Amino acid sequence: MTPYQRIKNQILRRLAQGKATFWQLVNYQDSHLVDFLEAIKELLKEGLIKYEKPFFYLSSSYAGLPYEDPGCLFCNSFSKSKFWQELLERFKELTKDRPLPTSDYDQGFIRPIDTVRRVAFIYERGDLERTEVFILGDDDLLSLAMALTKLPKRVVVVEIDERINEFIRKKTKEIGYEALEVYNYNVIDSLPSHLERSFDVFFTDPVETEKGLKLFVSRCISSLKGKGSVGYMGFTHREASLRKWRDFEKFLIDSGFVITDILRDFTTYPEAENQWEDFYRTYRIMQEFDLELPDVDWYKSCLLRFEVVKGPYLLPIDKPKDLEELYFDDEAWATPLPSYLEKKEGR
Amino acid sequence: MTPYQRIKNQILRRLAQGKATFWQLVNYQDSHLVDFLEAIKELLKEGLIKYEKPFFYLSSSYAGLPYEDPGCLFCNSFSKSKFWQELLERFKELTKDRPLPTSDYDQGFIRPIDTVRRVAFIYERGDLERTEVFILGDDDLLSLAMALTKLPKRVVVVEIDERINEFIRKKTKEIGYEALEVYNYNVIDSLPSHLERSFDVFFTDPVETEKGLKLFVSRCISSLKGKGSVGYMGFTHREASLRKWRDFEKFLIDSGFVITDILRDFTTYPEAENQWEDFYRTYRIMQEFDLELPDVDWYKSCLLRFEVVKGPYLLPIDKPKDLEELYFDDEAWATPLPSYLEKKEGR
Repeated sequence: MTPYQRIKNQILRRLAQGKATFWQLVNYQDSHLVDFLEAIKELLKEGLIKYEKPFFYLSSSYAGLPYEDPGCLFCNSFSKSKFWQELLERFKELTKDRPLPTSDYDQGFIRPIDTVRRVAFIYERGDLERTEVFILGDDDLLSLAMALTKLPKRVVVVEIDERINEFIRKKTKEIGYEALEVYNYNVIDSLPSHLERSFDVFFTDPVETEKGLKLFVSRCISSLKGKGSVGYMGFTHREASLRKWRDFEKFLIDSGFVITDILRDFTTYPEAENQWEDFYRTYRIMQEFDLELPDVDWYKSCLLRFEVVKGPYLLPIDKPKDLEELYFDDEAWATPLPSYLEKKEGR
Repeated sequence: MTPYQRIKNQILRRLAQGKATFWQLVNYQDSHLVDFLEAIKELLKEGLIKYEKPFFYLSSSYAGLPYEDPGCLFCNSFSKSKFWQELLERFKELTKDRPLPTSDYDQGFIRPIDTVRRVAFIYERGDLERTEVFILGDDDLLSLAMALTKLPKRVVVVEIDERINEFIRKKTKEIGYEALEVYNYNVIDSLPSHLERSFDVFFTDPVETEKGLKLFVSRCISSLKGKGSVGYMGFTHREASLRKWRDFEKFLIDSGFVITDILRDFTTYPEAENQWEDFYRTYRIMQEFDLELPDVDWYKSCLLRFEVVKGPYLLPIDKPKDLEELYFDDEAWATPLPSYLEKKEGR
């Protein structure tokens, strides 16, 4: 996706609602005035829109979905839009028998409303319509929420947990979405070559160890097409220090990205639904202080968006030497001990 | 301000509302679990709080303001809190005869509610209470909104426009806040030495030319105390490309900061109140396309927050060689031509 394509998406779907002035349109897209004007000029030249001062309007009908305002994504989401409300209800229904987290892969899922909020934020940015999306690790079932919108051109999930892969495959069939592919994949391995340089957008919720973090994101970067492609990820303050954040931001910028959004504590991990009471006994935080099990949802993560300005470049990284190094470092105080590590001496 | 001090602020003001569990408290502060637990332990050791499993509570009364929830800062702000509602009303009343923008300094102010939202966001982060705040350029009158809270230890404004300086001085007296100082200052000059390395927090809304941007922020960086100090700034997509954003983010990270928040289009510049119809005829965007004056508010800016992890380091920068280079580059398409430049040949 070129940057202009993203702006054009944003302009066309807005005009599908009705005519708009230049200044009204500015508010429905994300780019610099120079790029916005360039996108407008291209659309005029292509004959897709017309200008009768002061209004722009569509020349013919629009094949896609006219702009659906999801409302405020920080609190009262979806109250204005039947499209988004129905999407949330369908997503909840579709995923109610989802697999529960296993400590073997440091799993935990976010609230269904937060998954749909993530989709809506991606949609707002013009990153969903007619794009090819790569998802590394999907216990949140983001792919299914995207599939329900029917907006992306293609969604590919790579995930290590066969239970989740089976679940996604089954549900995809149920809803009759054919553009979703699921592959069994271990992040330790290189990305299969047929998935390299093929996507406009990636999403991942990486492990947050120094080495694991870069490994996850590096695999994702190798999936991107190039300039104008974007990455999204969840990242916490709970288990990642500001020193680690800074080091990781430097990595992103050196890889050719600009960071465009950092939404603090955008998503919440619900304690009750995750049923991970058993995990707590192995959390380091429980060993460091005399605590009872949580009485509120407290594990939250920020949403980051970053866009390729140059490259992207695949920088050399230190790969974790084993699963212990993938899941644990000095900052991982709320990460469960996988069963295969519990038996090891010295822990 | 040390990072622990910020967390302690956030914990104490929450406990001033009533006792809370460990997990409840986590949700009222921003830091990593390790730092949070360290702050808790220090507060216990200092005797300021007590722990009777599962609750933490204050040992004695709290001298400051118990936590006041400003609500969702993206839409329905301040609906839950009389404190914030009254602050907004008082700020509007106090500033209703504010100076209008002059094209000589590329001015324009944000909506009063957005100024108070900025204060509330700074408050939420624990960056307002008992801190020393440096503001470079203040036609938004952020200093007065902060003064009305009476929370900071000290607020210093440096600003080139004597009309604004006089206005702030007069209003500060009116409200009887003694910890606000105002200095006449041109960003081209070095910061007076008595203002160097003296502040916990800075705020600036810089010009967005490549050279101007770094000049503004560099002056601000020289005002900060060190590790744990934070910067806030407004930055737009309207007049700054993603290439410029990336270059600037690299500058921040190289200066020792981590970027913690990027809130897209957090603030709006109201057309009617700014009365800048006259400015438009000199905007480059009006010369590039046949446009009428705006019928909606369209100029918006993002809010960035960044925190010192190392240093901060004062990097060498290219200073603009004159006022034209300070205010104009290829991306400044909605910047008014100052009167002293209008007379120059060739423009």
